Parts: sequence; C-alpha cells; structure tokens
Amino acid sequence: MDKPDITVELTALRDQIDEVDSQLVELLAKRRSITSKVGQLKSQVGMPIYAPDRETQLLIKRREQAEQAGVCPELIEDILRRLMRDSYRSQDASGYRCVNSDCRKVVVIGGSGQLGAVFVDLFTRSHYTVEILEHDDWPRSKEILADASLVIVSVPIRLTTNIIGQLTQLPDDCILADFTSIKASPLFEMMKVHNGPVVGLHPMFGPDVSGLIKQTIIACEGRAPDKYQWVLDQFTVWGAKIHAVSAHKHDDAMSMVQVMRHFSTIAYGYHLMAEGAEISQLVEMSSPIYRLELIMVGRLFAQNPILYTDIIFSNRENVAMMKRFAYRFLELLEDVELGDKTAFVSMFNQVSDWFGDYAETFLHESKAMLLKANELKKH
Amino acid sequence: MDKPDITVELTALRDQIDEVDSQLVELLAKRRSITSKVGQLKSQVGMPIYAPDRETQLLIKRREQAEQAGVCPELIEDILRRLMRDSYRSQDASGYRCVNSDCRKVVVIGGSGQLGAVFVDLFTRSHYTVEILEHDDWPRSKEILADASLVIVSVPIRLTTNIIGQLTQLPDDCILADFTSIKASPLFEMMKVHNGPVVGLHPMFGPDVSGLIKQTIIACEGRAPDKYQWVLDQFTVWGAKIHAVSAHKHDDAMSMVQVMRHFSTIAYGYHLMAEGAEISQLVEMSSPIYRLELIMVGRLFAQNPILYTDIIFSNRENVAMMKRFAYRFLELLEDVELGDKTAFVSMFNQVSDWFGDYAETFLHESKAMLLKANELKKH
Repeated sequence: MDKPDITVELTALRDQIDEVDSQLVELLAKRRSITSKVGQLKSQVGMPIYAPDRETQLLIKRREQAEQAGVCPELIEDILRRLMRDSYRSQDASGYRCVNSDCRKVVVIGGSGQLGAVFVDLFTRSHYTVEILEHDDWPRSKEILADASLVIVSVPIRLTTNIIGQLTQLPDDCILADFTSIKASPLFEMMKVHNGPVVGLHPMFGPDVSGLIKQTIIACEGRAPDKYQWVLDQFTVWGAKIHAVSAHKHDDAMSMVQVMRHFSTIAYGYHLMAEGAEISQLVEMSSPIYRLELIMVGRLFAQNPILYTDIIFSNRENVAMMKRFAYRFLELLEDVELGDKTAFVSMFNQVSDWFGDYAETFLHESKAMLLKANELKKH
Repeated sequence: MDKPDITVELTALRDQIDEVDSQLVELLAKRRSITSKVGQLKSQVGMPIYAPDRETQLLIKRREQAEQAGVCPELIEDILRRLMRDSYRSQDASGYRCVNSDCRKVVVIGGSGQLGAVFVDLFTRSHYTVEILEHDDWPRSKEILADASLVIVSVPIRLTTNIIGQLTQLPDDCILADFTSIKASPLFEMMKVHNGPVVGLHPMFGPDVSGLIKQTIIACEGRAPDKYQWVLDQFTVWGAKIHAVSAHKHDDAMSMVQVMRHFSTIAYGYHLMAEGAEISQLVEMSSPIYRLELIMVGRLFAQNPILYTDIIFSNRENVAMMKRFAYRFLELLEDVELGDKTAFVSMFNQVSDWFGDYAETFLHESKAMLLKANELKKH
C-alpha cells in the first residue's frame, strides 16, 4: 500500500473514532440527565443514593452483554464504576433525607475547618438546623449551645481536650461527639464533662472526598448508644459505612497504620534528601510501582506539617512501638550484612502467612492501581 | 408522592439507564472494531501504535464537547484514557514493524522466564528470528549462539555474572545486553567477556504489563552505541521510552527507590506481624489512603521471596545506606520523645522544599489514585 493511501485511510478511520467518541459524550449527557432524575426522586422520599445490589446487578448484566459483543468485560466494568462515581456525585447535590426531624440543632465546633465543613454541608442538605462554633464565637457559646441536640467537636487534635473541657453546660439530652483521630482520651474527657449521650467518631477520609459513599466512619461507644443511633443512621443515609469498635482497639490500629506509616514516610523523605538524591532522576527512573511509592511519599510533603506533627506527637506511647520498628529494621539488616538469605526468606514466609488471603487480594488490587497510574502518566 | 408511584417511576428510570448502558456497550464494540483496523493498517506499514499528539488532540476535543453538553470533562477524559489503554492492547496483537531486517537472530537467555517471555513475544511479533537459551540448552549453546546478532541475558540476578562469564564465543558484531536490575557489575562483566557492542538494560516494569506503551527502559552505555541503536529503536516502536543514564547513577537511584523501599516495606510487614496486629481489623479501619498503603505492603508478600531477597542481597553496599535510614528514623523519633515539634516541623519543611513541585504533582495524582481505589472497593 502506498503512503498517501495510508494517510487517507488512517484519517478516515480516525474520523470514525471521533464520531463514535462524540456519540459517547452524548450518551453520557443523556445518562447523567436520567441519574439526576433518580437523585431527585430518591431525595424526595429519602431513599439512600447508594444501592449496592442494584450496582452489582447492573455490572453483571453489562459484563455479560460485553462478552457477547466482543468487548472486554473489565473494560465495561471500569467504565461503569467510573460513571457511577460521577452519578453519585450528581445525585448527592439533590439533598438527603433527615432521619431525626425532632433534632433541635446541630452544632459543629470547628465547622469552618476542612473536615467540619463537609459535615456542616451534609447536615444542612439533610434539612437540619446547623450552627458553627469557631474560635471567635466562644463569648456567645452558652447561647449557641443552649438548645443543641448534637454537638460535634471537629478541631485540631492539640485543641481537642481543651475544647471538650469547656462543654460543661450542654443540655442533658444533647449528644456529644468528636472527630479526633485518637479516641480513648477524647472519649474519656467527653464522659467526664457531660452526663448525656456520648460517642467518639473518626471519619476515615480526608476533606477532599466527593460524598460519603463507601467511606468508613469509626464509632466508639461512650454512653447511651440508643440515644445517638440516629446520628449513625444519618451517616448511613449519606452512604457511609459505620465500623463500631472500642476506643482502645481503634487507637492500637491507628498507631500501626496512621502514626507509624506517616512517621516512617516522613523519615524516608528526610533520608532521600539527606542522601543527596536527585528527585527528578528518581522520577525518570521509576517503574509504575516505584512511581506510586514516590507519590505516596511526596504527597505528604505537599500538606500542612502541623497536621502530621500533631498526629505523631499526640500519643507518646507510640514512640516505644516505633523504636521497636527501627530495631527490627536493623535486625533484618543484619541478615543482609551476614548474607543469611535463609533467615530472611523464612521471615518473609512467616509474614506472608500472617497476611493470608489479603496478600493476594492486595496484589490483585495493586495491578489495577498501576494500570491507572500508567494511564495518568504524561509520556 | 406515594410509595408505589416511586417504585414505578424508579423502575422506569432504571430501565432507561439500562438502555443507555446497553447502547454504551454497542458503542464500545463499534469503537474497538475501528481501532483494530487502525492497528492492522499501522502494522502493515510499521507505524508506531502510540501517537501522543493524536491522543492529546482527541482528549481536548472531547473535553470541550463534554463541557458544552454538561458532562464533567474529567469524566470523559478518564473514560477515553481507559478506552485508549484497551485499544493499544488490541492493536498490540497486530504485530510490529521490524527496524532491523538484517538481524540474523535474537537469542534470549532465560527467555522462558516471565520478563524474558515478554520480549521473546515482542521480537517474534516484529518478525525477528528468536531463539531461547534455557538451563538445559547449554550443551547446544555454541550452536545456538553462533549466528546471533543480539544476545539478551534475562536471568535471575544471582545467576547473571556466572551466565555472562560463559559468553566467550559470541560473533564479533553481536550485541550483548542484559536485563539485570543492577547495572554496573553486569556491564563490567559483559565488557570483559565480549569485544563487540555492549549495552546494559533495565526494563522498569514487571512481567504483567500489557504492552510496552509508556513504559520506561533504562539503557546504560557499554560499547559502540551506534551499533546497538537499532535495539533501542525497536523498543521505541513497541511504545517504550528509553532513559539513558550511567550504570553508576542507575545503581544509586535503584538502591534508593528499589532496594531501600522493598526492604523497608518488608520490615514494616514483619513489624505488623511482630506487634500482633490483626490484619482484618487494620483493613476494616483503613481510610482509602491507608488501604493503599496496606496494598503496597501486602502485594509484596504475595510474591516470590527469592526475587526480593536476591535484589536486596545483591549489593552489600546498600547495607550502610539503609543503616543510615534507621539511624535517621531514630534521630527523628528523638524529636517526638522530647516533644520538640519545632525541630520536626523545620525538618518537614526542608524536605518539602527538596521535593519542590513534585510534592504538589504527587498530591494531585494521589487523589486520582484514591478515587480509583474507592471505586474498586466492595462495600
């Protein structure tokens, strides 16, 4: 085939692709207009937006159709999941059912903060009366808190104890809750200061979530769970999943995943710098998996140091645990120094057993993540 | 509105969504049939499959159209990127242009291994004569290697030196290359054993890639680059990006990103187990970001320990560097123990400066990754 023929033929095919893609955009616009109607309908009667069964069913049906049409089922599933994320977001705009219309007022202390604002917005769109109590409002606090049915403390971790200590005059039936990323100590303080219902909460997501669907909120029982159940129900209406656990267990887990990982990631960034590494070279030479590792490190340093410092410094008990990590690190390094591969492999296998089925699951998920990372990459 | 009315109306809307989704599958099938034709056409004349300019142009056009149609531009971009990944994959099946038709034979030592097999497949589909040399073939090695134009050593790192040492009788004009994840030492050995063209290569991806598009291959110059340039050109035809760097610089970077991260991740897994953590609890209580962290750790333990042990043990010089990490870790921990937040924040800010613009870029990319991770999550 001659070169000019090729160009002509290629252009014709590319025009056809453009035509298909244009139809695709139209189809997405049409889909969105239908899902918006679903959102309005659900909002009117207070049905939850997130319907896992419908989601599963929808995916199965389209995977089957795709297979018959010679389209990769994973492709259609990926696209539909992406579409559903978008559609939850658009439905989210329609407002939510209010599960407790007897609620007098919700007060969010620190409600202008990033995370606080997410909940102020959600409570408002669920037709609650919401008031924010910020630093400058404390002179009026008595008045603001007087008729509260729910008070949520959503302030930086270093201020939590102090703020809770001031909540001595809440109405007896008022629910007192907090969003701190540690739970035992704030829960103790809340129980001390208030005799009514108390619950410790930890939303497991950052302020840049688009809606609460599939997000986890941890709930640690304080007092009178039957009295604050409606709050958890309201979170569920927003799509969140509630994970009930003791404050002690929560704090143990957080010291392992949150404190330890943050600290170790910061130490790794510091190490890279101290070794005189060139970041641009590291990026250039990264495979998708190392790029993802670098992303996880670098992302941290684009954020507020105070936030991380407060979390890490909030619980001195973690120091001993993190020291143990450093010693274990040096212990394993001794195997390398001595060339003892057998000991190293045997340790590796023990940890594999400890991870159990999760190791395979995570490997599988990481593959999907890496493909996504590569898609995002600009060549 | 009454309950029955809602159900009827909701069902009607869901039927409409199903109808749209069904049209979507049809559209994808149509798109795939066109992109297959593009692939065949390109393959006939040896045009590269990956066309970054066309890709950019296509995305811009559809983003504009989406905006006008009230569809989120990020949504259409995400979907089109996913479609292009699929279409590269389907085009990949059509075969590739051979950039050196004078090449007598390509021999891949260890070509039945996972990574070797990827290249055997690609060379074959580019119309080269390819032969594999495995462990049992060594008695016939003289014969197999006699008329080779390119020999690639793709064996586990612990065997590399030994295997290279046996390649004493290659034709003078034969190119000798290796795929080891360290470069200085194998390059030295190759230069010693062979007088012809030599190049050290490090494909920066695992064996489960779907095609080489946007993947990086590192090339460390050995001897006579003009003679082996065609090999790099061939990689480019497959869509890979070549990053030329000295063996020394490569090894430095790898010790930082590969060895250090693997080791530290393994140590973290060991630490979790040794602390008696409950993995299921950690997973239940994970935010998307911690889940991603856990994925990055757990994925490693689903893989072959020998692979990681060999990489970590291959370069004893790394031990000193990793010890420095542990000491820095303990040094920073002292700040925490002493409650010296000022020192910690100041260190943090220094590292932020060192990361420069990459920190923001990584934060941005991590957000896309987290949304993807949440999409994958089964509630």
